[in-house]
Amino acid sequence: MIEYRSIRVALLGAGSVGSQVARLLLEHRDELAQRIGARLELVGVAVRDVDARRDVELPRELLTTDAETLILGADVVIELMGGIEPARTLVLQAIGSGADVVTGNKALIAAHGPELFAAAEQVGAQLSYEAAVGGAIPIIRPLRDSLAGDRVERILGIVNGTTNFILDRMDTTGASLEDALATATELGYAEADPTADIGGYDAAQKAAILASLAFHTNVPIEDVHREGITQVSAEQVESARKAGYVVKLLAICERIADAASGEEGVSARVYPALVPRSHPLAAVHGANNAVFVEAAAAGPLMFYGAGAGGVQTASAVLGDLVAIARRHVIGGPGTAESTHAALPVLPIDRITTRYAITLEVADEPGVLATIAHVFADHGVSVEQLEQTVDEVSGRATLVIGTHEASEGALAQTVAALAASPVVVSVASVLRVEGAQ
Amino acid sequence: MIEYRSIRVALLGAGSVGSQVARLLLEHRDELAQRIGARLELVGVAVRDVDARRDVELPRELLTTDAETLILGADVVIELMGGIEPARTLVLQAIGSGADVVTGNKALIAAHGPELFAAAEQVGAQLSYEAAVGGAIPIIRPLRDSLAGDRVERILGIVNGTTNFILDRMDTTGASLEDALATATELGYAEADPTADIGGYDAAQKAAILASLAFHTNVPIEDVHREGITQVSAEQVESARKAGYVVKLLAICERIADAASGEEGVSARVYPALVPRSHPLAAVHGANNAVFVEAAAAGPLMFYGAGAGGVQTASAVLGDLVAIARRHVIGGPGTAESTHAALPVLPIDRITTRYAITLEVADEPGVLATIAHVFADHGVSVEQLEQTVDEVSGRATLVIGTHEASEGALAQTVAALAASPVVVSVASVLRVEGAQ
Repeated sequence: MIEYRSIRVALLGAGSVGSQVARLLLEHRDELAQRIGARLELVGVAVRDVDARRDVELPRELLTTDAETLILGADVVIELMGGIEPARTLVLQAIGSGADVVTGNKALIAAHGPELFAAAEQVGAQLSYEAAVGGAIPIIRPLRDSLAGDRVERILGIVNGTTNFILDRMDTTGASLEDALATATELGYAEADPTADIGGYDAAQKAAILASLAFHTNVPIEDVHREGITQVSAEQVESARKAGYVVKLLAICERIADAASGEEGVSARVYPALVPRSHPLAAVHGANNAVFVEAAAAGPLMFYGAGAGGVQTASAVLGDLVAIARRHVIGGPGTAESTHAALPVLPIDRITTRYAITLEVADEPGVLATIAHVFADHGVSVEQLEQTVDEVSGRATLVIGTHEASEGALAQTVAALAASPVVVSVASVLRVEGAQ
Repeated sequence: MIEYRSIRVALLGAGSVGSQVARLLLEHRDELAQRIGARLELVGVAVRDVDARRDVELPRELLTTDAETLILGADVVIELMGGIEPARTLVLQAIGSGADVVTGNKALIAAHGPELFAAAEQVGAQLSYEAAVGGAIPIIRPLRDSLAGDRVERILGIVNGTTNFILDRMDTTGASLEDALATATELGYAEADPTADIGGYDAAQKAAILASLAFHTNVPIEDVHREGITQVSAEQVESARKAGYVVKLLAICERIADAASGEEGVSARVYPALVPRSHPLAAVHGANNAVFVEAAAAGPLMFYGAGAGGVQTASAVLGDLVAIARRHVIGGPGTAESTHAALPVLPIDRITTRYAITLEVADEPGVLATIAHVFADHGVSVEQLEQTVDEVSGRATLVIGTHEASEGALAQTVAALAASPVVVSVASVLRVEGAQ
């Protein structure tokens, strides 16, 4: 066993995201150590009230209410408290004491990004905030690094899951805003006070963050034009549907010519808009998020996934953490391509999959039973079977969908079918992927 | 004007991607310098035959056939020659001489990744290859960094644009494989010898790269099971369509239990498969690429965009280059969040957009003319107008779609409409976004 050095990680906040981050850090400590080349040691979790956190499955001894002291001993501080204060002061203290910072706090970055980035740059600290926009979806890093040599022209983002759930429900069921909101609340997609979501405030914070990053320009949250979905009616959604559109709450960041002066500027705005059904964003359903980016060289790109959720957002936090930690170890991207896992690469006959098989068979009694036997003999279970008979030729076509089975068993089944006297020909064999 | 230090960039290969990289480097040199905090100086472009490159708009004096000498003076070497040799030897020489390397060479990474990564790690050099998979789509960096703290379970990728174009055309037009391939060749989506694409070889290289990175396991190209699309028939595509599926050539990387032993392993494979129409991958049309990733914490994610094309792929190369160059400057992600561009943030009335307006109006002669005047008076051009009359109430509904106009003019138009005596009510005003 390799002896790894230790990187001290302090966690501020143990809400739905924070508690998942702590869990994953503890559960996957060995695997993460291999990936990083150093051990991530969770040195403490700052919470408001230790006794109130009995529900969270965290070792008691890690909990503290003294965030300021916790920060002092940390190499990396993860801030997931939300809100402006005390988060801002603590992040600045962490940077000041030499720690790198990971935050998922969109309100903080939208309101105080420039101050925090300047503080981090001054001391050479890393400050990452992938979780602040789009939950699990990698969008900050692609904008910051992957598109760093390109020129982003426009971003259209569905960045608030609650409102997308509501608008999608209105679109698919004809529900009123009120009813769709009630459903969202019932299913846990909307909070008791849904103002931040349906008023567009949450989306506006994300628009400010995306626009600032994409256009290398400070876009203050106050300059983001914001309209929520509170005025969207069932009639509007229905008319949109009939005309080939869907209503989506969009965060729009655009590099434009000033309509008055013609000079180059940027716009960040949030409002419900009609999106053509043919646009990739129209297919973003439920509480999912997606960010559509148009760049001068890359053309249109889309990033899609779960926009919220504790464990999903924790994935983004951990990605930032591992990327930061790797640079502690070797000052480089380092072990990202290492093959420490060294899992066996299995040949095709060791995987399981599903087959869709089309057979031409004789239309006579007993054929189905014979075919069914072939499947059963190889341990392959049939999920679906459809027979059509051609009266003229006296031949029948069988379309058979299997349950998941080993590729080896499936291949042997097909070979046995081809050799069966009742099978005229195996017309088609295709695997099925991506089905639930 | 700030005096930036210079980072010496050598480019190997000036094909469709390389010539675009050179062009963008030269055209955007000032903007890139601001982003990086250093100047990217293109010191030379190695080509096979200088005289044969008269078509490429590159300064003659940059061209050389002596790649080995060119490398020696470079801080960063961009390898876009393709193929294994001399690319492999040159990349190893570049790393050996202290340069960082950006490559878009999928054949090289798939066949010799471990050797190259080890060489880079040994001397602390950076080796980036975002352009090797998915063209402009950021997928390597998200897998390497954003998902670094997560556990990737499965990747389903449409990673070959040529075959997706062919299968999409077969699906939408009912064409045979032969005819669809002919169209692809005609339109420049398929090469004169399409074997690498339709045989699945290109997709298999990408599957090897993705699986190796996602599972931290060396997946040699020889271990990727490969079936191309040459056996896919118009009948299969048609049957799939009727059954609610679409045939896609998928690169599949999976963390699985060995069907024989039950032990953990990985599988990388390429074959045409049936994908349910409801799956996000089913909506990937034409020559586009998309990579669908399922991770334990993040859940399903999708990355979508142009999978090929010179300028699109050049975007990925430049992203790698800028990310590398930033670390030359300050050893950190650094100026990514800088606001050097400092563009004005324009208020909502300075943008241009399109409106969809629904009006209830009196059903009497002259109303349309009055309404049309209101639009004309504010310089707003009407693209579409639909009138429906309710015989009972004697009222008409007008649904009006405008051309792009300034938000200010549109808002004034709506105000004037609301005040017009012929307008009973402004029933709905929504902006239209994402339309062509």
